[in-house]
Amino acid sequence: MEIDSPASHEKASLFSRVRWWFEALPKRLTAEVIETASNTKRLAQDDPRRVTHSIKVGLALSLVSLFYYYQPLYDNFGVSAMWAVMTVVVVFEFSVGATLGKGLNRALATLLAGALGLGAHHLANLSGHIGEPILLGLFVFIQAATSTFVRFFPKIKARYDYGLLIFILTFSLISVSGFRDAEILELAHKRLSTVLIGGSSCVIISILVRPVWAGEDLHNLIALNMEKIANFLEHPSVIEYFKTSENGNSNDDKSFLQGYKSVLNSKSNEESLANFARWEPCHGQFHFRHPWKQYLTIGIRTRECAYRIDALSGHLNSDIQAKPEICSKIQEACTTMSLESSKCLRELACGVRAMTHPSSAKHISKAKIEARKLKLLLKSSLWEQDADLLAVIPSVTVASLLIDIVNCTEKIADSVLELASLAHFKSVDPTVSPEKSQVGQDEPDKPLTVIACPQVVIIVDGSENDNPPGPSTNRHLEM
Amino acid sequence: MEIDSPASHEKASLFSRVRWWFEALPKRLTAEVIETASNTKRLAQDDPRRVTHSIKVGLALSLVSLFYYYQPLYDNFGVSAMWAVMTVVVVFEFSVGATLGKGLNRALATLLAGALGLGAHHLANLSGHIGEPILLGLFVFIQAATSTFVRFFPKIKARYDYGLLIFILTFSLISVSGFRDAEILELAHKRLSTVLIGGSSCVIISILVRPVWAGEDLHNLIALNMEKIANFLEHPSVIEYFKTSENGNSNDDKSFLQGYKSVLNSKSNEESLANFARWEPCHGQFHFRHPWKQYLTIGIRTRECAYRIDALSGHLNSDIQAKPEICSKIQEACTTMSLESSKCLRELACGVRAMTHPSSAKHISKAKIEARKLKLLLKSSLWEQDADLLAVIPSVTVASLLIDIVNCTEKIADSVLELASLAHFKSVDPTVSPEKSQVGQDEPDKPLTVIACPQVVIIVDGSENDNPPGPSTNRHLEM
Repeated sequence: MEIDSPASHEKASLFSRVRWWFEALPKRLTAEVIETASNTKRLAQDDPRRVTHSIKVGLALSLVSLFYYYQPLYDNFGVSAMWAVMTVVVVFEFSVGATLGKGLNRALATLLAGALGLGAHHLANLSGHIGEPILLGLFVFIQAATSTFVRFFPKIKARYDYGLLIFILTFSLISVSGFRDAEILELAHKRLSTVLIGGSSCVIISILVRPVWAGEDLHNLIALNMEKIANFLEHPSVIEYFKTSENGNSNDDKSFLQGYKSVLNSKSNEESLANFARWEPCHGQFHFRHPWKQYLTIGIRTRECAYRIDALSGHLNSDIQAKPEICSKIQEACTTMSLESSKCLRELACGVRAMTHPSSAKHISKAKIEARKLKLLLKSSLWEQDADLLAVIPSVTVASLLIDIVNCTEKIADSVLELASLAHFKSVDPTVSPEKSQVGQDEPDKPLTVIACPQVVIIVDGSENDNPPGPSTNRHLEM
Repeated sequence: MEIDSPASHEKASLFSRVRWWFEALPKRLTAEVIETASNTKRLAQDDPRRVTHSIKVGLALSLVSLFYYYQPLYDNFGVSAMWAVMTVVVVFEFSVGATLGKGLNRALATLLAGALGLGAHHLANLSGHIGEPILLGLFVFIQAATSTFVRFFPKIKARYDYGLLIFILTFSLISVSGFRDAEILELAHKRLSTVLIGGSSCVIISILVRPVWAGEDLHNLIALNMEKIANFLEHPSVIEYFKTSENGNSNDDKSFLQGYKSVLNSKSNEESLANFARWEPCHGQFHFRHPWKQYLTIGIRTRECAYRIDALSGHLNSDIQAKPEICSKIQEACTTMSLESSKCLRELACGVRAMTHPSSAKHISKAKIEARKLKLLLKSSLWEQDADLLAVIPSVTVASLLIDIVNCTEKIADSVLELASLAHFKSVDPTVSPEKSQVGQDEPDKPLTVIACPQVVIIVDGSENDNPPGPSTNRHLEM
């Protein structure tokens, strides 16, 4: 590089940066296009409802456009058509709940702001030719500032944010337009009826054509998150942690254990789904006042469990190896705790999916008995010959995390049972399920879930499905 | 309760439910109003920029309304005024970055969709009187379905979601309206210029009147999160965990330790701030291509540390008491590890806030030396008289979590150093800071932060500020 004065150097660097940007642009765009093309298929395959949703939006929009196109209902074409088209574009959301929420917000806000705008316009009219614009400006200012501030309230933001936006918009439009337009009532009437046409066509298409219910999504997400944690706990490489210390490390398996990671960050997703679900009418197995809030409680507790799983995962992947002699001593208790917690979570997930009272109590009590046994074992003098605490730490930490996880699982079970009673889940004959699992144990190759939960549809990352619990774990399944 | 036929019972329950809803409505509304009133003050005090923002929106809206009101620039009043007002309502966001992003999205999408809409209109015109509406409907359908699907791409959703929405809207409006309106070019021109007027007034007011920069918020949030974890680690009740086991439990203190909880769920907030920040021009100490992505890396690592803190917090609050003899043996190493990690995080946070190269290396190395010492201590035969492992578990788990936290801190330090080199942070004379801390140690009452970081503005929950490290910790501060 040449040595220049700082100013010219800076200039050159700016020029070269601009040139670099323009030179890199086509390359970047091409890369983006290629990436997009390869991602499109995956995106559509991951959730085919995305394709359906896109088609639904296109359908609604063409319908509203063409409906208007053939029947000019209002004299002023531009303004009115616009509102219907605009409503469809803005209101049509992925789930029925979100669409209904936005549609109702928009309709009510338009109605309310229209009425208030008319009032403001009337009041401004009374104050003479000079006072009118000042008063109108003042009204718009006060209304916009107040509504904007109200949007900061978390509860209002969650449910009525869009309504407030439309309130500000409609009020300003009505009060300002009204000043020059004598037929202010007609404007308000036009706006409201076109919003209703657009909104109702969105809601109708969204409900009739392959509806996506936010409530159902939330319901499945909560069950799926419990299953992800259950998958981790029953995964061979977790179960065999105490054995692999003897047999050498099976690191290739450990990359499969990332399924639970998505549980850690599911909070905002769960909250928005719960907000949408509250707008939804009764559908499928869910009535209108379904206890959606309880799902959030389960979600919080599942996440607490996932934090422990994250810590556990860190220990399983660490370089520090547990001592084989110690492992072999606590192996049975730890394996049982892990498997019973996993089975309990799976039963709970099954219960939530099938909307039946889950029969998780026996797994919890088994896990708790094992936890107590483990504590007794650790208390016994078995350890005297092993004074090297450093070698004991990894196994003991893992054991203590497993005890934590058993406690978390119990809390999750409590909140699921609360949900079951709040939402009046069906009770099933408790003798059926154990018999079924008895049958399952004769066929060690079949994964547990197929047996224990007849209605289960497990959506797990493919890798987890490829790893049914190995024969070594079957002894514990009998417990 | 009377025994009725199921149908009439259901009816009665529906009626009573509806009646209950209407009866509860005024009570609910009143409660909401009272709660809102009491919350308003807190909301405004928590972040006074909310009030400023509300006033700014009111100002922009009245300006655009009145500006139009006095100078009817276009013949068709209704349509054009509406676009300017609408743009202000929809585009004006809390931070400059969000406003700029939405404004640019809106302007570019309007331009592009306007051009394509014109093209579609021209193409449809060529196909005769019967083909025209069919072709237009098809165009609208294809365009809406494609754009809606594209909105599902995560990267596009994060940055261009609003632009795509406006693209669908404008394209539909132009192509449908254009059919009856001969002056389609005028419509497109009007729409674009009013959008530009509305958008630019938003951007100008948002930048000139007390700007809120998303980048600055992200910068402070990242530093604040590190400080929250540092606060936890240097909190007396954590430091004295190994002591309180001797002196009895100080449970009243432990409710103060919740500050770190917000770190666990800060992911979505950080990501949206980073997305907004990328739209912002250079401001304050940040240039245009500031490495905002690196902040997300730091955020991820800070959250990993917070998960460990969460597990640690669970152990500190558990009923199982650590054995005093064991505690006293590992106390010094654990306290030092905790304090040095805390000091390191605080140095990093200070470095980020002041945009200087942080001098955290010595704290990290001290913490790592202590971790190694602790391991040696645990390996030694000190423990032979203590065969009761159950009594050892709590302390050993806490110790092992602290070792984990030291590792996490090192990772955070690495990513902050990477940020410092990417963003060309100023280097400070490394001899200054230690001297200053030397001075600080003579005054044990002053909190650490004031000494170590001249530019620090710590926004912590009041409770943390009330608890400067007690005299018992000062011995470790000298290290």
